[in-house]
Amino acid sequence: MLAGNGLSDRLVTYEPVEISEPVVSFGDRLAEHVARRESRLVLGLDPDPSRLWPHALELAGGGDDLSTPPAARAARAARAVLTHCRLLIDAAGDQCVAVKPQVACFERLGAPGWEALAEVVVYARAAGLLVIADAKRGDVDVSAAAYAQAFFGETQTPYGPVEGLGVDALTVSPWLGADSLAPFVEAARRRGGGLFVLARNSNPGAADLQDRELAGGTVSEAAARMIARLGADGIGSSGLSDVGAVVGATAPHQLESLRAAMPNAIFLLPGVGAQGGQVEALAPAFAPGPAAGLVSVSRGIAYAYTHHGGDPADSARRESARLRDSVNRLVSPS
Amino acid sequence: MLAGNGLSDRLVTYEPVEISEPVVSFGDRLAEHVARRESRLVLGLDPDPSRLWPHALELAGGGDDLSTPPAARAARAARAVLTHCRLLIDAAGDQCVAVKPQVACFERLGAPGWEALAEVVVYARAAGLLVIADAKRGDVDVSAAAYAQAFFGETQTPYGPVEGLGVDALTVSPWLGADSLAPFVEAARRRGGGLFVLARNSNPGAADLQDRELAGGTVSEAAARMIARLGADGIGSSGLSDVGAVVGATAPHQLESLRAAMPNAIFLLPGVGAQGGQVEALAPAFAPGPAAGLVSVSRGIAYAYTHHGGDPADSARRESARLRDSVNRLVSPS
Repeated sequence: MLAGNGLSDRLVTYEPVEISEPVVSFGDRLAEHVARRESRLVLGLDPDPSRLWPHALELAGGGDDLSTPPAARAARAARAVLTHCRLLIDAAGDQCVAVKPQVACFERLGAPGWEALAEVVVYARAAGLLVIADAKRGDVDVSAAAYAQAFFGETQTPYGPVEGLGVDALTVSPWLGADSLAPFVEAARRRGGGLFVLARNSNPGAADLQDRELAGGTVSEAAARMIARLGADGIGSSGLSDVGAVVGATAPHQLESLRAAMPNAIFLLPGVGAQGGQVEALAPAFAPGPAAGLVSVSRGIAYAYTHHGGDPADSARRESARLRDSVNRLVSPS
Repeated sequence: MLAGNGLSDRLVTYEPVEISEPVVSFGDRLAEHVARRESRLVLGLDPDPSRLWPHALELAGGGDDLSTPPAARAARAARAVLTHCRLLIDAAGDQCVAVKPQVACFERLGAPGWEALAEVVVYARAAGLLVIADAKRGDVDVSAAAYAQAFFGETQTPYGPVEGLGVDALTVSPWLGADSLAPFVEAARRRGGGLFVLARNSNPGAADLQDRELAGGTVSEAAARMIARLGADGIGSSGLSDVGAVVGATAPHQLESLRAAMPNAIFLLPGVGAQGGQVEALAPAFAPGPAAGLVSVSRGIAYAYTHHGGDPADSARRESARLRDSVNRLVSPS
């Protein structure tokens, strides 16, 4: 573009400099975080604008205000949602290794919701937490690449590159097959990011397709083998791969066979608490090492005060400490 | 809340009025649109900020401008993306029955991208087109409900309800099973909206899980039976259900068995053109009637000018007219 600036006669040589900062793989980054923070607990952020902590509403500028004109509601609600998430991170973040914002909860507030999500990512990272975007994306190759830009990378535009959210990891669906996941793997790996592929979800309906029997195992075991293959080139010195798996804590009987099929995958384990999963049943997830499993809890922390009483933040702190310890006991039984 | 307003002594009776506007089912709405517009062609909107029509860049205020500060880039790029989509709708919309924005392409521009998506929805609807959001969402029940709010419904907040995008239909993934789709079905049905569940995608990797053999058929046929069950209560007088299916035009050998498993589903058929699918092979999709299939084409229309030369808008118009006619011939052979 030098010619266009009238600078073509100056002796400027431009050589792209290869910045050779070595990228630490996601598995190794996670292992380091788990060791330093002594936690395998993931704080789920599923903000429901009609169930925010009262203090968040106060801080965000007044509680119920039904006279807010429609055009201003999303922005106000998004601000309250952001404040709620910050308070939750302040209260429970110390006990956790990562946060897991549920993207749907932000997306429903439109552009201001997306803005709030971006700010939650910044806030959590500043608190030393990894960010796992729970978006369950999946699409054919070109569109998968576009989603990967949204979460990990950047998008080239005529006005210069636009940065994505810059999360550390993303949940993705295997339904469209390995070629639909490849652009996610590529984008994540380039930046030391990771994926959690939905291998066996925690909801009852997960059985509908995932538990079907194929010749040689279930559909979710076939997905597990695909996940292992995708992650084979992304295994760090910790022995953990950058392609992990979502494995619901509600199906503990499948943990061992899924672990066998994915020996290097980090398992993200939702379903503890509200959905009925028990921490004690999750030991097989940790067989490969102390950072091989992450236990994600959302409502059980944010709404602990509705069961145990007391201040929302105090209750969240206590409940996250309790959960952290009970997960840690799976790794180093006392 | 009257007491809180100091109005409790006034004789105000509030009775919720049941607004009994009958909701026309999505199948019937689509059948009417197809008949009136004489088209089964869906205009895919997959805007790539680095491949926008030159005229869009001019209209959006200047072409390449790499001096745009990072914070302003996303907003400028989103404006150019919106302009591109409007020009494309102006050029090819008349030949189509619906548009299908690929949500990933907007999401990668962050909040301004989401704003542009909302404006594309408004613009397309004003042009008389149905809007099918291609988002391939899928999540466990609570989160599925949040996504449904984002696309079809509204979200309750302390400041009043926040409207979602208000699309006519949404693509969703069946990977998490029937209970994960139920909140989408409920939200769509309440407003006369529809779903297109990913039954058999158009990419090569779709075979990885979807083509696996179970006892009694493939995994995608199991998904198809699930789709048929979910749609059984949403069949309109047109005989078409509000739970449709995405069936890739690249796997025509599976069309007949999937049609047999889903006799009332509207088939959304991507994969014609760039991915190699042929319109001529799609006849089985239309067996239930003239609105039982929708053929979606994105790059083949937007970038027709790169193959055939000439003005982008003229080429898009001609190519969409040609495609429309070739699809129509499947229904009424001339």
